Amino acid sequence: MTVLILTSEEDVTADMVVARLHEAGAPVMRLDPADLPGKAVLSARYAHGDFEGHLSVNGRVLSMGGLRSVWVRRPGEPAAHAAHSSAWLTAETRQALFGMLYSGSTRWMNHPRNADRARLKPWQLRAAHLSGFAVPPTVFTTSPRLARQFAEEHREVVVKSASGPPPGDPTLALPTTLIGPDSDFSGVAAGPALLQRYIRKRADIRLTCVSTRLFAARKTAQPDQVDGRYGDTGHTWEAVSVPERVGKSVHEYVAMAGLAYAAFDFAEDEEGFWWFLECNQSGQFGFVELETGQPISEAVALWLAQRQAGRGQQWRGRR
Amino acid sequence: MTVLILTSEEDVTADMVVARLHEAGAPVMRLDPADLPGKAVLSARYAHGDFEGHLSVNGRVLSMGGLRSVWVRRPGEPAAHAAHSSAWLTAETRQALFGMLYSGSTRWMNHPRNADRARLKPWQLRAAHLSGFAVPPTVFTTSPRLARQFAEEHREVVVKSASGPPPGDPTLALPTTLIGPDSDFSGVAAGPALLQRYIRKRADIRLTCVSTRLFAARKTAQPDQVDGRYGDTGHTWEAVSVPERVGKSVHEYVAMAGLAYAAFDFAEDEEGFWWFLECNQSGQFGFVELETGQPISEAVALWLAQRQAGRGQQWRGRR
Repeated sequence: MTVLILTSEEDVTADMVVARLHEAGAPVMRLDPADLPGKAVLSARYAHGDFEGHLSVNGRVLSMGGLRSVWVRRPGEPAAHAAHSSAWLTAETRQALFGMLYSGSTRWMNHPRNADRARLKPWQLRAAHLSGFAVPPTVFTTSPRLARQFAEEHREVVVKSASGPPPGDPTLALPTTLIGPDSDFSGVAAGPALLQRYIRKRADIRLTCVSTRLFAARKTAQPDQVDGRYGDTGHTWEAVSVPERVGKSVHEYVAMAGLAYAAFDFAEDEEGFWWFLECNQSGQFGFVELETGQPISEAVALWLAQRQAGRGQQWRGRR
Repeated sequence: MTVLILTSEEDVTADMVVARLHEAGAPVMRLDPADLPGKAVLSARYAHGDFEGHLSVNGRVLSMGGLRSVWVRRPGEPAAHAAHSSAWLTAETRQALFGMLYSGSTRWMNHPRNADRARLKPWQLRAAHLSGFAVPPTVFTTSPRLARQFAEEHREVVVKSASGPPPGDPTLALPTTLIGPDSDFSGVAAGPALLQRYIRKRADIRLTCVSTRLFAARKTAQPDQVDGRYGDTGHTWEAVSVPERVGKSVHEYVAMAGLAYAAFDFAEDEEGFWWFLECNQSGQFGFVELETGQPISEAVALWLAQRQAGRGQQWRGRR
């Protein structure tokens, strides 16, 4: 039974997990969907009420019946490396690859359908509320009037991107920025703004959830530092225990979202209270593992290699 | 309680349903996501464990609490009509619009998550098998050897596109084509091929499913006509009753797929047996209604306007 890792060639985080899978004696196949067709060959056959599929990479063959789990790490676009790449070839190749993988009942970290929904920030906030997290008041709006009204109500608010950096320019720094009610809100009409009440924090918290295992890390913030991702604070990440109430909410959230892996960001305020900021279903964990020594890559490897942890994708209405 | 229709401005099928909704006295809001931001304004606020959202189009305001259902017809790309459109603005606007709609518990025809999965042809075939349909043997492959082997086994096979016409060139005709085992299969290595055993048919069947209501139509095929979508057969669509076994499978399939609307294509063979070809979750129904007089747009309107038919999107783990 083989673990399939969908990721690009250069991915040191995947390398860490592959090393753990080798230690555990679990067979691994690594595929960048960008290499299909080409380095990889696919075949799926639907006949007589049954289904069989194969994937081969560099001559090694994986049968769908022998697939234990799929880890969707940092996959390239299907067919992106093809000699005659095109949007259509990508669409056709996506159909063949993901259609075949969806036809089985393997376990996913994370299933693309759940990952897509979990990326939606407004959905995250709703799910966080329903899971019992404390969430700073937030508004998404294209109305300059409502944006200003929100800033007047909360006095100190941050503005950030909902979808992340602009595609095509992922290196553009886009730090969360503190603004006040006197800012110019006219630009909000040109594109939705995400405004959130500013939490004056004494630390950033990164909580990595691998199925039922939680790894929390804390990094002391500089006074008045708004976005902990940019700039050196002079502090490092240190392991920290998870408050019981927060742990309960994390378990509720990942069950609701259908995620086997999730990285949560919290702001620890001046009273030590943790505020939910966001949940990244494919958040990095390498930097946390390196600084804290928490065995996150091992936890990921164990989950992927496990015989029966959790159920695979369900075919509704079938026994 | 308002029905929200996401579609582009020119959509005569939507017009048919809007007319029925007006007759039923059901309030309707029509929005092309391409017009957001611009003609439309959005605001969603997450605070104190609660959520409220508004959408306004041409000054008319719809509160998320007053949303009865969403019909995803032929929506444009979010922000496509914006003065400064960009991939990033589309991503941000998609986050805001769909994130807000996903935060509620409205009913969908069809929910985008289920629609995305239902578009995958290999998944369709697996679901069709598990629902008890008869499905012609089919292979998806990038291996010329396996493609030829399949054609040798079945002698007469058709080749077709899995994802539909090439994006950017939707007018390119791409008819399903009959081939034999002596064809040149070398091109299969360059892009996945979908090969299916050819069913010699005497009629095309289009079965439109609106929740639990089924409307089947039949059009006699010309002898040796492979793809009924192209060319005039000299016959028109006529209403036909649904075999009991097929009806049961349709209900199983749409439950499994989570679809409120689906258009099934079958080939009726020379013994009168219906073979599953595909299921289009957003298939057109206007041409069937016009030729058969079947009240499909009325059925769609009634489902959208209904107070309690079926459950909305569920928030798992919540009462």
